[in-house]
Formats: sequence, structure tokens, C-alpha cells
Amino acid sequence: MRYATTRRPVLTLTTGPVDAYPEVLQALATTVLYDFDPAFLAHYEKVARKAQRAMGTGGVPTILHGEPVLALEAAAASLIAARDTVLNLVSGVYGKGFGHWAKRWCRELVEITVPYDDVIDPEAVAAMFRERPDIAVVSVVHHETPSGTINPVDEIGAICARHGAHLIVDAVSSWGGMPASPDACQAAIYVTGPSKCLGCPPGLSLVAVSERGWAKMAANPKAPRASMLSILDWQEAWRSDRPFPFTPSVAEINGLDRALDLYLEEGPEAVWGRHALTAAACRAGVRGLGLDIWPARDAIASPTTTAVKVPDGIDGAALLATSRERYGVTFSAGRAETLGKLIRIGHMGPTAQPIHSIAAVAALGAALQAMGGRADIGGGTEAAMEIINGAF
Amino acid sequence: MRYATTRRPVLTLTTGPVDAYPEVLQALATTVLYDFDPAFLAHYEKVARKAQRAMGTGGVPTILHGEPVLALEAAAASLIAARDTVLNLVSGVYGKGFGHWAKRWCRELVEITVPYDDVIDPEAVAAMFRERPDIAVVSVVHHETPSGTINPVDEIGAICARHGAHLIVDAVSSWGGMPASPDACQAAIYVTGPSKCLGCPPGLSLVAVSERGWAKMAANPKAPRASMLSILDWQEAWRSDRPFPFTPSVAEINGLDRALDLYLEEGPEAVWGRHALTAAACRAGVRGLGLDIWPARDAIASPTTTAVKVPDGIDGAALLATSRERYGVTFSAGRAETLGKLIRIGHMGPTAQPIHSIAAVAALGAALQAMGGRADIGGGTEAAMEIINGAF
Amino acid sequence: MRYATTRRPVLTLTTGPVDAYPEVLQALATTVLYDFDPAFLAHYEKVARKAQRAMGTGGVPTILHGEPVLALEAAAASLIAARDTVLNLVSGVYGKGFGHWAKRWCRELVEITVPYDDVIDPEAVAAMFRERPDIAVVSVVHHETPSGTINPVDEIGAICARHGAHLIVDAVSSWGGMPASPDACQAAIYVTGPSKCLGCPPGLSLVAVSERGWAKMAANPKAPRASMLSILDWQEAWRSDRPFPFTPSVAEINGLDRALDLYLEEGPEAVWGRHALTAAACRAGVRGLGLDIWPARDAIASPTTTAVKVPDGIDGAALLATSRERYGVTFSAGRAETLGKLIRIGHMGPTAQPIHSIAAVAALGAALQAMGGRADIGGGTEAAMEIINGAF
Amino acid sequence: MRYATTRRPVLTLTTGPVDAYPEVLQALATTVLYDFDPAFLAHYEKVARKAQRAMGTGGVPTILHGEPVLALEAAAASLIAARDTVLNLVSGVYGKGFGHWAKRWCRELVEITVPYDDVIDPEAVAAMFRERPDIAVVSVVHHETPSGTINPVDEIGAICARHGAHLIVDAVSSWGGMPASPDACQAAIYVTGPSKCLGCPPGLSLVAVSERGWAKMAANPKAPRASMLSILDWQEAWRSDRPFPFTPSVAEINGLDRALDLYLEEGPEAVWGRHALTAAACRAGVRGLGLDIWPARDAIASPTTTAVKVPDGIDGAALLATSRERYGVTFSAGRAETLGKLIRIGHMGPTAQPIHSIAAVAALGAALQAMGGRADIGGGTEAAMEIINGAF
Repeated sequence: MRYATTRRPVLTLTTGPVDAYPEVLQALATTVLYDFDPAFLAHYEKVARKAQRAMGTGGVPTILHGEPVLALEAAAASLIAARDTVLNLVSGVYGKGFGHWAKRWCRELVEITVPYDDVIDPEAVAAMFRERPDIAVVSVVHHETPSGTINPVDEIGAICARHGAHLIVDAVSSWGGMPASPDACQAAIYVTGPSKCLGCPPGLSLVAVSERGWAKMAANPKAPRASMLSILDWQEAWRSDRPFPFTPSVAEINGLDRALDLYLEEGPEAVWGRHALTAAACRAGVRGLGLDIWPARDAIASPTTTAVKVPDGIDGAALLATSRERYGVTFSAGRAETLGKLIRIGHMGPTAQPIHSIAAVAALGAALQAMGGRADIGGGTEAAMEIINGAF
Repeated sequence: MRYATTRRPVLTLTTGPVDAYPEVLQALATTVLYDFDPAFLAHYEKVARKAQRAMGTGGVPTILHGEPVLALEAAAASLIAARDTVLNLVSGVYGKGFGHWAKRWCRELVEITVPYDDVIDPEAVAAMFRERPDIAVVSVVHHETPSGTINPVDEIGAICARHGAHLIVDAVSSWGGMPASPDACQAAIYVTGPSKCLGCPPGLSLVAVSERGWAKMAANPKAPRASMLSILDWQEAWRSDRPFPFTPSVAEINGLDRALDLYLEEGPEAVWGRHALTAAACRAGVRGLGLDIWPARDAIASPTTTAVKVPDGIDGAALLATSRERYGVTFSAGRAETLGKLIRIGHMGPTAQPIHSIAAVAALGAALQAMGGRADIGGGTEAAMEIINGAF
Repeated sequence: MRYATTRRPVLTLTTGPVDAYPEVLQALATTVLYDFDPAFLAHYEKVARKAQRAMGTGGVPTILHGEPVLALEAAAASLIAARDTVLNLVSGVYGKGFGHWAKRWCRELVEITVPYDDVIDPEAVAAMFRERPDIAVVSVVHHETPSGTINPVDEIGAICARHGAHLIVDAVSSWGGMPASPDACQAAIYVTGPSKCLGCPPGLSLVAVSERGWAKMAANPKAPRASMLSILDWQEAWRSDRPFPFTPSVAEINGLDRALDLYLEEGPEAVWGRHALTAAACRAGVRGLGLDIWPARDAIASPTTTAVKVPDGIDGAALLATSRERYGVTFSAGRAETLGKLIRIGHMGPTAQPIHSIAAVAALGAALQAMGGRADIGGGTEAAMEIINGAF
Repeated sequence: MRYATTRRPVLTLTTGPVDAYPEVLQALATTVLYDFDPAFLAHYEKVARKAQRAMGTGGVPTILHGEPVLALEAAAASLIAARDTVLNLVSGVYGKGFGHWAKRWCRELVEITVPYDDVIDPEAVAAMFRERPDIAVVSVVHHETPSGTINPVDEIGAICARHGAHLIVDAVSSWGGMPASPDACQAAIYVTGPSKCLGCPPGLSLVAVSERGWAKMAANPKAPRASMLSILDWQEAWRSDRPFPFTPSVAEINGLDRALDLYLEEGPEAVWGRHALTAAACRAGVRGLGLDIWPARDAIASPTTTAVKVPDGIDGAALLATSRERYGVTFSAGRAETLGKLIRIGHMGPTAQPIHSIAAVAALGAALQAMGGRADIGGGTEAAMEIINGAF
């Protein structure tokens, strides 16, 4: 039997979009209210405050009505003033990409680049500040999703704070799946999205802005206003007595509301534990298969994505297609520089279940075998299961 | 981490209810129509005719508005006349149970009983007819779900036909998951339910009645009428120009409609193939673990349920609880005589996916290990995967 | 423009099924759990206890897995012993119908019958008890839906109690839409259904049984057991540590759970007020049109259904078809003896909204006009609106 | 009784968001696919082509992943080059607003302004072209939602075409509710959104771009690329063999798919007829109440919104609050210059049902009465119903 490419796979173990929690899907189907209806205005404020509780941050986060690329572009456009020197930290494809946005708005862009299987050394950031004390804004990707690596944003944030620089953090695919918060890394702007570890469909961004962040944006004459790219327009929009700059995505807000409930009901620690255990089982399973993970070492491997090196001589795209067609299991490819070199097993939100590591490892191994490669399926599943059983 | 007993497990690999297809769940949420609304009357007829197409039978099947125990009790009450001798074929718990209903209505109940890991030999039926030519009704369970075994109903049906006896077939958990039809076994009354291989929630029965079946019921003065137990009341109810005897379960009908679409769109052969391959992978995986299946031989093992012998010294209930708590994987226990002796991996409708056999085998093996038993998880998953890869 | 008979109407203002609350529809789409899963067992107990709270009764109500005709037939079969004299109170089609079930099981059936636009006089019941002190069971319909009339069940219950008789109450379409409870009328068996004023789809019954009711059933050797018609089988089934007699309707339970939440959150008094005001507006509007209501007087008119006399010379079926086709508004016809003589505007659960009385009155009036009849639409809508505005 | 401001109203008769079609809400709850999954890529292309069929345009429309303010800002940013003279046509608040965006990108902004209860005279546009032959881009709002008026875009488009100017049309709340198409008005960029007459929740834009439009954008060095504001980035994104610039809003696409089906199944003419008849009934009803509509004459009144003048001495906001609180009926307020001067009854998509005009008129009239104003409810409902009955 083959799973037709026109039909839904059995397991979508990608790095997002992942399938939403069933409760979130149901919530999307809620009666749509007029955005100026008092019931909706109150609901929106309640959701924003719930997001604040979930994010553990001092201010009420801003919800932007587009997936996080909107928030990241808006952050660059809003925070970076024309005379700013920006330090962009590059440990992967997403970090590199942010530099293009930063360059549009700053006076000078400085970058620290490391190989894409490694992460930024805070010491290098400290050294750069000594060299370039004019750095006003620093940008960093917490989870380099295309590499499955985690940058030490809290340490980097402390250094920025010491130098009075404003930090922009892309925590899109890490927040909600591991210990991480806007305040811990002292971010001026902290961007995440509900379509990763919160288990929502894509379409919204969550943006936590510090008081210094708001002040810098307000002082920036080029910060977008009356624009889709504006963050400032939405500063007070969460209040039930303020109008929206434009019509919010009502259904997505309903989904977010339920996702936040699920996150808070299960308990952040429990959710993070689920992600961490699934990731550990995946890494063990991958090695048990006889393969290797992409990150240079386990300590920097993401708890929400397991990036696996594609063995020499194997076509990564064909590997993904084989897994999908034969077993109904979908993984993510790499992206840009990592495309073809790795495949990624996502474990985010509803898919961060340790037992899925078994299916992932078995499907990956069997797809390799089917393509003439070698994989020890028994070794892989046993190693993954040992990790899981070891958690008790 | 542990999966709380108060929260949904990750995988419900039971013998029903299984989780419904997502499309069916969505269909349940359809606006509820008044049952006498012309749009609903037309919809109901369309669904009934679609069920006829799916079941490949000459007449339009009757939908009863309760799960299949209703249909089975109604079949006994409606078809068995006071002067009838009934031959009840017992190869498991459900067959035994049907005898209790049959006894209420017949003159004499005759039974052929075989061990619950085996199935009825058609030759024994033929012999019984020679001994008791007065047998008017024969009853048999196609899939003895509590044992995971499949009775040869087509052969049995041919013998009944030769003797002019009326056959009642319980095909609740087999139809839709394997080649099986009311006409192939020449059933007078053939009962199935959408909550097994069709992937609906429980709440409806599908009853195919042959022309001889209708005639015998109509001639039975004790056949229930104006009763929940009546099949006759509903004989014409599928027609859009006839009233319903009582209010039908509108939401369940909407779900059934979508489930039938899915079944026909995927194609019965493809659906059956999915079930058969999952079952074969499960059996191989179970043996690879070092365990044994319950049915006496593979030829009689069900494609929709894999019954696994609980190893000596292991508490079956604790085994299930361990799998659910540690891995979020739920299996079915045995029932009555098979309770404690076996556990059952269901693969029905949406859960009949070969890749799920890997999670099932791994969870079962790891739960055994956690309880101090022995299981070769690597051997199990490899054996299962070999079967799956062998299907290409 | 015409609303096609194959498409959903705009407003279903019938006496049930009515459209479910949107939240209930969403709840139907909840992941289906295995009925023996501990999460489902706990959920079921929680729902049963919630139903108890909603019904304000001393015991936990029994949920039967079929629409209320199942529960009513089961009540007759279970409570009425072979030697019982039954007094069946007939003020309408449903009361008459219950007599047929009662007759199957009792020694003698006695009836008090009143015209179908009137209700039972408790005094007549008291008189009958004096005449026939052997009456053991009394049956009454609270809301005679086909007539839109409300019987004084609390008064009747008090008389029964004085004589030690057991009362069966059909409160299917009244409970939840007006002050009414099993304890207030001292019912032995009190049947209602979530598909009327609770706003669920049809498919379940709620049955409150008093301690005396349980005792009488238990003592009745003919009370069904191991049967769809059994109430006794389900006596303890609500407990999370007891098995189900057969698979419950999981999706319907999920819907019921949400419907009970909505009922309790809005508050029973508020819900009843909504129904009462809608009914009052409908009655005023109907009279404003120049038509008459069916019940002999307002005091006995149902708060959940407004039955309207069809004017002489008008074909009731054509009237309904005209309203549906032209305005997309569906009403209920009469039933049996009331068929053709009245049409019924339902206001139950989600449709019990005073503003809908305006659309109902206007559609009814305009349909009459379209058929050549006379109706004062302006007078009707003004009269209805006056009632609504008078409520502030 | 009062409808709490914290609970959903009964009828949301606003100018958007309106409640979505129930089928669209269900579709939102579809399993979320990975955006690079072949099944999703094929689905997206299918949806885009379906949108093309619905819009009756030569090219495949571009779906932008934000509500139409995104598309309008993107249109200004993409189409208007630094040396362009732009003629912005202002007959209301939205037209005025577009000028602010246009000004950001053009060399010179020229405007024709008419009172906000009137529409643009094509003759004035022709005259302006004679005066300013350098006009390169013209922008116009088809349906000035805050005024409920319809500009003659086809005539304006013909004039632009004659002068080789590029036309930007905001057809957000008109398309899908009346005869209107990108090709009929020869638009370079034609923006609409599924959250109005298509009955989707807000969150997407549909943008039809002509070949000349694409060419002009491609030749504009300042046209956004690698930006949320880019239209060019998405030019080929509908093809199943092309990647998405960023993650599309998967759930909203599923909703759009179903909404397009509904639109095409019902038939555009039938849908438009529903809107037109509802609007005509509303206008007649409003006048029957003794009130007046806002547009200067019926010929320019929108079929998707009925703007009603607030009588002197009445507080428009209090009027809306009264209607919502007493009858559960929500209308829209005016906006900016029209705020307080008018209230708007929306009839878009699922709410464009003639019978709703009765509830709208009655609620509006009764709210006025409750505030001490005068309204002839009977006259209003009769007048509205006469229009409806006149349609047969």
C-alpha cells in the first residue's frame, strides 16, 4: 500500500505547522463575533492576559495578526532606528535571514557567524561589544529551526543588558516547548508564534515588548504606524476599551485562547518535559539506527526539533518522500544551506509525545533501508524506548 | 513523565470505540435539522443509499438508532418466532451472549461450541443440520472481537441456504475492514455498526435484511412493532416520503454520511488492505517481541484486531495501565472468559495504519519490561517493519 | 428567490430537533475515547453528576443511549408489573400513545381523557383514585408537544404520592425550558431528553428514577435486563468504577456535557425566562396577526411551543411549505389528531430567543397572505415587540 | 431579560466580521497539514484556482495572509512608483484612508472628494484626466462600507483604461454580494476579502492582479519584496510546485475552500439576489419605521449594507447598545466621519437573508422606542415583508 500524495499523512512530525491540538481545532469553529462586539472586546483582553500569564512576562504581549515572519519584520522595522548599529548573530538560516531585514533599517550591520551546526558563544558577543561599543541593537534566533540548535539567549541577553543594547529574540519555535521567557533573556522584543509548541494553526504572532522596547520604538520616527508592519499601533489594542487598528483574526484568537488553556492546564513544566523526553528519545533512536544528529553536540540540540544528518549517498528529498509514501510519516527537510544535508523530526505541541519517537525512528530507518541504505531499526527503537523507560 | 488517567491518551488502539476520522468528527458538528425538514428527509435517503453502495447489497440497509447491541437484540426479537429451533454458533464471548437473546424467543436453542481461540467448522454446521433438520434460524458472529478470530460466515451461509435456514450475522467489527458483505454470506439479517471500521462514534447500527428476512419478520406475530426493538418499523423509513417511527439521531447520521464518503473515496479494497497489512505487521511484531497471538492460527486471525496472549505471571490489567500511563497507548482488555488472558490491539478505521503497529509493539514490549517481563522490542519492531516494507 | 428544499432553512423554529447550541456542535467533534478508558469513565461520571445538578434531583439520573422514546418505552416495560392497574392521563397525542406501551405490561389500563386543547384536572385524578384505589402506576405527559399544553404534574404527583402510586412523567420537551423537576412532581420515573430545551442533537435520554422507582423495578420480574429496554442495567453505570452494559454514545455524551455547562452557566432561571418571554411574545404576535392559539387558555400554554390554530380554509402543510420556501423559516406541523389543525412554533434551547418571535410571526403572517389568507403582519410584530419591551 | 455584554448576541447583523457559514466554521477545524506536504501544496493550488473561478478573472488571484488592510497597503506600496501621480477618489472614510497610504509612495496625490452620502461621478474622473494627464494610478473604493454606498467602478475603470492608468479597487465588502469582478472594472489590483460576503472569518485577502498590474509592480524598484507587504513574493506561490514565501494560514485556507464551494454551489446570481432582496427589504423597512437611509438615493445604496440615519436627538452608540442588550441584535456603528450619524445593518454572506430584515427593522424600531424615540414597528415590518413577498 502507498499513501497517496493527495491524501493526509498519518503522522505529521514536522517542525511546523504541526497539526493543532484537537481542542484548538474545535475552538476555531466557534461562532465568529463582530470585532467591536463587547463580548469579543472582553474576550480579546482575556486572551492577551492569558498569553501574558503563559509567557511569564511583566507586560501584556502584543498579538499580531500574521504568522511570526510578520512580527520579525515588524520588529526590525520598528525597533531599529536609522542611526543604529545592529549586531546580528548568525548560527543558521533564520539568523542569516534576519540580517536582511535589519540591514534595511540600520546604519551598519555587524554579524557574528558560526557554523550552522553550532551556536553563538556569549563570550564572542561580549568581545564584539568591546570592539564595537556603538552596538544599539542585537538580534538572535533562540531556536535555529533549520539546524535544530538552541542559542544561549539568556546569557546573550545579560551581556546586552550590561551594554544597554536592545535585544530582539526570535523564539518562534522554542517558546512553549522549553524553559524560555522574554524576561529571562531581557529582550526588548521577543517574538513567538502559537503555531509551533502551542499547537495552533499558523496565522498569529505573540510579541512581548519590554518597557525600554516600547520607548525605543516610540522614539523611532521611522517606526511603522498605520501599517501592517506596525507594532506600535497595537500597543493598547488588547484593552477592551480600545479599538483595533484593523480587524483581528477572530477565529485564530479563539484557537489561541484554547491553546493557552491547554498549556496552562497541563502545566508549562509538564509540557517542556514532554518535549525534552521526546527529543532525547529521538536522538537516542537516531543514533541507534546508526545515524547522527546534525547539532555538534547534545547540549545544544533543540528539545523541539531533532535534526538528523542525511547519510552520504542518500537523497534527502527522496528519503522524505519514501517515508511519507510508505508509512504515512512526514518529516521536514532542511532549509537553504541545510537543505539536503539534514532532515528534521519535529516534536512540537501535540506531536511532542515520546511514543512518536518510535514511529519516527522506525519510519526513518525503514525508508533508508528501502532506498538501499543501512539502518538498525531494532537498535533505534530499543535505544529510544530505553530513554523513555528511563524517565520513570 | 506519566500520562494522567484524567487526560486523553496519545493513541487509542482499541477494538472500538476507536477515535473517529477527523472528517467524521467535523461532520458531527453540522447544523442539526428538523427531522421532517425536506432537506433532512432527502439527506437521510441519500445516506441510506450510500450505505447500500458501501455494503454492496441488494436492498437498502436499515439504520437503527442505537449501537449494534440494539440491532442484535432487535434481530433476535424480530426474526426468531416462537416455534423456531435456533442454532447458535459459539466460538467466543459474543456468540455465547447472543444465545441468551435467542433463547428468549425460540422454542429450542441448539449450540455448537468451540474453544475461544478457534472458529466454527462449517462441516460441523452441516452435520448439525443433518441431525436437526428443524433448525430455522442460525446465528453466528463474524469477528469474535474478544478473541480476535474470524468465522467462515460465507461457507456457513451457503449451508444455511441449502437448508432454507435464516442466518443472523454479527459483522459489527469486521465489516468495512475486510472483504465481507451481507449477500456473500446470504444473511437474513446482517448487523454491523459504523463505530468500528467506518470510524464513526458509537450510536448507530447498520442492518441489511434480505427479502426472505423481511418476509419472516413480517410473518412473526411477536416481532416488535412500535418499539425501540423493532426493525419492521424502520423498513421504509429511509424513503424521503415516509415518516420516521421516532426521531433519528441526526448528528450521527451526518457523521455516517461522511464516513461512507471516506470509505468509498479511499476504495474498499484499499481500506481492507490497510487493515490487513496493519494486522500482519502486528502479528509479526508480537511474535518478534517473543509473545504469541491468541488465535490458534494465523488463518483465522482478524484483520481488525490482534489478540495477544498475556504471558504467564503478568497481570493483564496492569499491563494495559502501564502502557497507557507511560506511553499514552491504550489497548483493549479481553472480555468475560478472555479477560486477563489476552490483550487486544485494535486496528480499525482511522487506526488501521501499519505504522501504528510499531508504536503498539514497542509500547506493549516496553510495558512488559517495565513490569519485569521479557520482550525483545528491537526484534518486535524489526519484524513488524519487515512486513510493512514487504508490502511494496 | 426561493429556499430550495434541498438546502438548510434559515431558521428552524420547530419543536425539536432544533438546531443545537454552537458550543454543543463543537463538543460533538471531540476526540472519541475508548469507553473503558479511565478518562472516559471519569468523564461519564462527571456528566451524570452534572445532569443531577441541572435536574435538581436527589439521585444521579440515568442516561439512556437513545432518544426519549426509548426511555419512555423502557419506563413502561420496567416499572409496570403484570398485576398493576395503570392510570394513563390523556390530554394529547403523546399521552394517548403512552397508553399503548402501558397496556403491554399491565393488568388493566384506566384512562382519563380530556380534549386535546386542554389539560388534566388534578381533581379528576383524585376522583379516579377514590373510584379505583388499586391504581399502582400513573402516567402523564408534562408538555403535550403536539398541542403545546402543559399538564399540572406537580399537583398530580402530590395526589399520586398520597395514594402510594408510582408516577411516570414524560417531561421530554418541557424540562430545561421551564420550572420543572423530578422531585417537584415526585416522579418514580421522570424522562427528559437533551435534544429539546438543552439544545443537543437527538440521541440520548435523561431518566431520573426515585428510590421507590428503583425498588419497584428491581422487584418486577419482567423488568427488562440485558436489553436495550433495560433501565436497571444502567443503574450504576454512571460510576467510574463500573462497566457499561454496552457502548455508550460517546459523542452525544460530549455534547450533553457542554449543553449542561451552558444551562448551568446561563442559570436555569435565566433560561426559563428566555423561553417564557419568547412564548409570550409569540402568543401576542399570533393574536396580533388575527390568529388564535390552540390551547384553550394562556395559563396552560407551553413556554416551549406555541401551537397556532390553522385558519379555516387553509392547508396547514402548504402553509409550512410556503414559509420555508419563501422565508427560510421552518415550523412544526401537528401530529396525528392535531395534524392539519395547528402549526407549532418551537422555542427551545438556542431558538428560545424573543427576537425570533418577530421572524416567526412575520413569516407565518406573510405565508398566510401569500396563500390568500388574511394576516395583520404589522399588528402581529408590534404586539410581539410590545411584550418583549414590556419585560424591561 | 437582558443579553449580557459578555455573551454572544443572537444575531450579528454587522458589516463584518459577520458570523461565518457553519460549513466554513467546520472546515476551519480540519487537520492542519505541513505547508510543504504535497497534499497541502495541491490543496492550495486547487483553492486558488477555485477563487479564480469564483472571481471570474483571467489570472489566478493571489491570496495574502492577512485581512484586506494588508492587501490594500501592499497594493499601494507595490503598484505606486515614486514618480507616479495618483488620483484617489474619496466618497467616504475608506477612500480617504487609502489616500494616506498612497501618499507614502507617490510623487503627487490628487483627490476628488464628494459628500460621504454620495458617490464618485465618472464624469468628474474623466474631467480630472483631462486636467492631469500625468495620472498613472487611480484608487477607488467600490463599497464605501462606512456609508453603505456603491461607487460606479466599472465606468471609472473604463475611463482609466482609456488613459492607460492603473486602477486599484477596494472591493472588500462588495465582491461576492453583488455583480462585481476584477475584469469588469479592468483593475490593475483588485482587493477583496473572504470575511465579508463569502462568510469566512477575517484573516485572508484575495487579490486579483492584471497582467499590466504585475508588470508595473515588477518594474517598481521600491515594490516590497521579502516582506509581509509584498504581493510580488506570492505571484507564483499558488502553484503546487513552488514554495511559499512564508507559512500560509492553513486553517483559513481550509475555510476559504469551503466558502468558495458554497458560493459556487449556490450560484453567484442566487447569492447576489439574496443580498439585493435583503437590502431592498431593509431599506423599505427602515422607511416604514419612519427613518431614512443614509445614501443620497437608492440607486447608490449598497446591497450588502444598509446605512440608516440616526434620528436627531438619539445617541447612536446607545441605540446599538440597547438593541444588543434587549433583543440580542448587533448592528455596526458608523466610522470616523460617519460615527454617530448612522448605524449600519449588515447583510453579508450568511446574514444576507431577507427574513433577517424583519428582525433588524423590529429591533431597530423597538430600541428607538425604548430610548424615547418614535418608530412604527408595524409599518416597518409590513413594508419589509411586502418587498420580500413581492419577489415571487
